[in-house]
Amino acid sequence: MTDRPIYDRVALIGLGLIAGSMAHAMRRGGLVGEITGTARSAETRDIAREIGLCDHVVDTAAEAVAGADLIVLAMPVGAMGAVAEEIAPHLKKGATVTDVGSVKRHVIDSVSPHIPEGVHFIPAHPLAGTEHSGPRSGFASLFDNRWCLIVPPEGADPEAVARLTALWQAMGANTDEMDADHHDLVLAVTSHTPHLIAYTMVGVADHLRRVTDSEVIKYSAAGFRDFTRIAASDPTMWRDVFLTNKEATLDILGRFTEELFVLQRAIRQGDGQMLHDYFTRTRAIRRGIIEAGQDTAAPDFGRTKIEDK
Amino acid sequence: MTDRPIYDRVALIGLGLIAGSMAHAMRRGGLVGEITGTARSAETRDIAREIGLCDHVVDTAAEAVAGADLIVLAMPVGAMGAVAEEIAPHLKKGATVTDVGSVKRHVIDSVSPHIPEGVHFIPAHPLAGTEHSGPRSGFASLFDNRWCLIVPPEGADPEAVARLTALWQAMGANTDEMDADHHDLVLAVTSHTPHLIAYTMVGVADHLRRVTDSEVIKYSAAGFRDFTRIAASDPTMWRDVFLTNKEATLDILGRFTEELFVLQRAIRQGDGQMLHDYFTRTRAIRRGIIEAGQDTAAPDFGRTKIEDK
Repeated sequence: MTDRPIYDRVALIGLGLIAGSMAHAMRRGGLVGEITGTARSAETRDIAREIGLCDHVVDTAAEAVAGADLIVLAMPVGAMGAVAEEIAPHLKKGATVTDVGSVKRHVIDSVSPHIPEGVHFIPAHPLAGTEHSGPRSGFASLFDNRWCLIVPPEGADPEAVARLTALWQAMGANTDEMDADHHDLVLAVTSHTPHLIAYTMVGVADHLRRVTDSEVIKYSAAGFRDFTRIAASDPTMWRDVFLTNKEATLDILGRFTEELFVLQRAIRQGDGQMLHDYFTRTRAIRRGIIEAGQDTAAPDFGRTKIEDK
Repeated sequence: MTDRPIYDRVALIGLGLIAGSMAHAMRRGGLVGEITGTARSAETRDIAREIGLCDHVVDTAAEAVAGADLIVLAMPVGAMGAVAEEIAPHLKKGATVTDVGSVKRHVIDSVSPHIPEGVHFIPAHPLAGTEHSGPRSGFASLFDNRWCLIVPPEGADPEAVARLTALWQAMGANTDEMDADHHDLVLAVTSHTPHLIAYTMVGVADHLRRVTDSEVIKYSAAGFRDFTRIAASDPTMWRDVFLTNKEATLDILGRFTEELFVLQRAIRQGDGQMLHDYFTRTRAIRRGIIEAGQDTAAPDFGRTKIEDK
């Protein structure tokens, strides 16, 4: 809770899982004055009006950003450049434009050229989500104890960065700052490539008619169950992630298949010693992480505990 | 709770996560008369004695099985044939030998030849585990609401199968029967290949010095966090799984890399339509599963709820 709103007027462009959750989280904390939302699809706007997701739902991005202090680009990253161009003439001097995309270099390259003098552009990426999408999928606690990476471009206004950071923290997130290229590489390792692998593994199971879908789910160990959940994520969002973080994803994928072939060859040749050594090394990595205090053996590792906050 | 023990005397050969959890679960339910345990390593036996894991801990498998009604082979599958040969002369007429291995065809082929006339051999596989191992890692609720697949060989005694099934159900598991080859294929899809993929992805992250281990954990989405946990599983057990379920694992791995290359090519060529179609299909698979009543949208899907039991 804060005495004064962090931003007076917020415009959400796109009303899916992330923007919807931001609306709920901002209201939960009384963090902003009023929230105006819009979405490209009339159906999404109608649902948002019906459930009262925002104070106002308007039909165009231009209307939404008029007079706004914070503008959040919350659509698939492939569409952000065009939207930035569309809203540019309507942005208020001193306003901050931010985004919530999973890729940062592409967003900076496609959005920055449209940002007018006197308007701040501070990209961000909340590392949170579910496999659900659409205006009904958001909830206030989505960001609680999750990380939000703030990626200020060179020369960004420190006060504008601090204000956006304060909003994310007030919505429950832990924040860190990171360079765009490093962000894209880290996310290629921790999120983008694992997602592609999950999509692939579920696709394989689907093709394999000797094993029924129900068997796959019923008897799946934790790994595969998570794979099917991950592979149910929004197709448009993930298409854009792979197309716009192409280089880092292909780099990590190349390393992954190279490595997989080494293990596959060891299986084919019956090289038990190689497999044992490899699995011992990966086990040590996880133990090292726990011993370094980066984690506990508990299943929720990697997150700050509620009581630590 | 049962009035009479399901088995009077149980022998656990191997005292790791699964056997230890069975000991706890059998005691929790008062399911058996007495439990004798043994393990190859003197250190493991000492710890088991110290924590009172079994009623008796003996030094050899031959001693452990003497007079036992149920003998559980609970070591890596690669060692089961040799242990079966070792205990064969000491098995009681009418006793049941079972195992808890993740692979079934290899276990049947290597153990069956040693089983004497008048002794039942009924392989089983509880689909439960954690990344921890050793005599201290077990706990009574490990099998609650998890599946245990019973794989009776042709001509198996129905009464002996029913008794083993009753024990697993009393330990909290849901049970199903399955043919050995189909079991090995289903598990290659749902468990073995996903484990190899997880080991591989953690190995890749380890090699990538531009991304630190702590970043990988701190900023990891749910997918990769689970990967590091899976990749901390027991190296010897998993070495044996891949070596003894070689054909099915290589089959699924081949399909996986083939599929991954198709997606990788689409990323490289910027084929957004193909990616979108693919991700829409995998999403539909998960929705189909939910609609078929095999699951709910809840994160614990695929398991029977406690209140349904």
